[in-house]
Amino acid sequence: MAEKAFDTKRFSAGAIAEFIQRALVAVEMPREDARIVAKLMTEADINGSDGHGIFRLPGYIRRIKEGGLNLKPNIHVERDKSGMALVDGDNAQGHLVMRYCAELAIKKAKDSGVAWVGTHHSNHAGPAALYAKMPLAEDMIGLYVAIGNANHLPPWGGVEMLLSTNPIAIAVPGKNEPAIVLDMATTVAAYGKVKTAVQRGEEMPEGWMIDRHGQPLTDPTKSDEGFLMPIGGPKGYGLALMFGLLAGTLNGAAFGKDVVDFNVDFKTPTNTGQFIVAIDIAAFGDVDAFKQNVDHIYRAMKASPTLPGYDEVLLPGEQSHKKRQDRTQNGVPIHSGLLKSLAKTANELGVVTLE
Amino acid sequence: MAEKAFDTKRFSAGAIAEFIQRALVAVEMPREDARIVAKLMTEADINGSDGHGIFRLPGYIRRIKEGGLNLKPNIHVERDKSGMALVDGDNAQGHLVMRYCAELAIKKAKDSGVAWVGTHHSNHAGPAALYAKMPLAEDMIGLYVAIGNANHLPPWGGVEMLLSTNPIAIAVPGKNEPAIVLDMATTVAAYGKVKTAVQRGEEMPEGWMIDRHGQPLTDPTKSDEGFLMPIGGPKGYGLALMFGLLAGTLNGAAFGKDVVDFNVDFKTPTNTGQFIVAIDIAAFGDVDAFKQNVDHIYRAMKASPTLPGYDEVLLPGEQSHKKRQDRTQNGVPIHSGLLKSLAKTANELGVVTLE
Repeated sequence: MAEKAFDTKRFSAGAIAEFIQRALVAVEMPREDARIVAKLMTEADINGSDGHGIFRLPGYIRRIKEGGLNLKPNIHVERDKSGMALVDGDNAQGHLVMRYCAELAIKKAKDSGVAWVGTHHSNHAGPAALYAKMPLAEDMIGLYVAIGNANHLPPWGGVEMLLSTNPIAIAVPGKNEPAIVLDMATTVAAYGKVKTAVQRGEEMPEGWMIDRHGQPLTDPTKSDEGFLMPIGGPKGYGLALMFGLLAGTLNGAAFGKDVVDFNVDFKTPTNTGQFIVAIDIAAFGDVDAFKQNVDHIYRAMKASPTLPGYDEVLLPGEQSHKKRQDRTQNGVPIHSGLLKSLAKTANELGVVTLE
Repeated sequence: MAEKAFDTKRFSAGAIAEFIQRALVAVEMPREDARIVAKLMTEADINGSDGHGIFRLPGYIRRIKEGGLNLKPNIHVERDKSGMALVDGDNAQGHLVMRYCAELAIKKAKDSGVAWVGTHHSNHAGPAALYAKMPLAEDMIGLYVAIGNANHLPPWGGVEMLLSTNPIAIAVPGKNEPAIVLDMATTVAAYGKVKTAVQRGEEMPEGWMIDRHGQPLTDPTKSDEGFLMPIGGPKGYGLALMFGLLAGTLNGAAFGKDVVDFNVDFKTPTNTGQFIVAIDIAAFGDVDAFKQNVDHIYRAMKASPTLPGYDEVLLPGEQSHKKRQDRTQNGVPIHSGLLKSLAKTANELGVVTLE
């Protein structure tokens, strides 16, 4: 898979992870926590989630410097039954909270078959697929939903920004084919894509955003004059709302008017909510037979003849899988705009920048 | 709420349920089962799910007459852990299977906090919201996903019909406001809407379907020359696929090429898969506080100023709630085309038609 080399430079996963860890340690995140966060953020970049990996570092650093994040958290189970748990993230970096929750859900699902773990007092944790994929190694299906950390979406027909792009990810393991991994915002475009368009100086296609008069908005630097469009109109709005109730309200996390815009406010704890469900395939039947059936589905989709204008059918997660193969071997391409921003952060922290 | 009276006649819920029961008993469904199915089908009509209530009766009757349904089923738990169960529907009418599963999920969730119950060897069960709403009475959230009983959707970019509209419903209780109930297909329009358009002699709007050359298809009588469009393009395809893996493949139910088109084949057992998740709000926190928070969300959405062209913001399930109020009081409007079809069915069965 050839990625556009224009204005980008490639860096190894190791170099990226080390830089992130250096930066986080410089703002006094404990070394082991910094290592875990750096590893997960780098994973995001390797998987092609360009808006959710190292791209987020300057924002995270700023939050830590302004006191908006708890660097000595006590992440713990607050409520617990056999099929669920509610975890208090104690305002820790979201990656640490969600890794804890995914491991807990996996452990519980070994006994209960299916386990649902929700969080509150969590924070932005990177791409949804990162956590949905964690149960795969245990022959489990993962399902993850998060409240986005800024509202960019009004209810359908409205103009007040009350909803985020609340994403969902679902990961299902195959036998010989790659896992099928859906990771999607409930909007046509995730806000991270708008942010990367700004940094790259690109226009947005029509359909991503509209302005307050209902007209298409294509200049990403004017994104605060409009809002993201939900997929399928009222349906995407409905999904964003229900996911918000499940990941936010049910967990006692912020939703609606209470959501803290982490692009603007770096001090107030976000009280982010997420949930992950681990589904133990063995509880439902034979694991090997299931994985073979998933392979059959995978191949049947790939074998479909295509519509005019399409070269091939893609499975959810297939592009990410190809990027992962490329980036593991050839490094992660980082855009010059992001490199400048990272160099500025490194300079402020007095650490060696990514090189 | 005023519904278009043109070419429709209203019938009381009681009259509809009695007619459905008469018809099902006439084809030898046991009286108590027929009563339950008739009640749930009528509920669908009261709630405004016009494509999923009495509209389906002639098809169900034909399936029974042709031997495609088991009238003496042994619906039973095949696998069971504290957080899940797999139910064998024994090729029973789907309403009976899903009622069994919803009650089981509720019972299990009282102990486990969250319970996931999947089915195989089930059948079409009517609208998704019917089952997602069942846990509400126990102060639980319901989440339901089903495999559709006919493939109308290719994978994104493809032309082979490998996917159904696999719907999702999520129901969350409020305190003083109505429950928020999302019930949506993963396609722009559900296939039931195409069917009702045929019966009513109406054109479809552009965006519902495309033909095999990628051109808009608006004549619903030509629906077999094209396919439904997923919401958000590849995202809706992704959702339909993942829901299929979860409701179908995981449960050992039909998915992909194995789906039996119940519009054409009335003999082969469909091996339909569904799942329902019951989430006990009390396991996560105070129930009353939760419901009040849901009310706050509800009112905040309603209070949003509107876009040009929109009179008000609607919550998921609000239109259904209004229809329910109207239809409970004034009866269910039934279109003349459907009435004719029902009279024909009644005549064939030698029972008194809906009147």
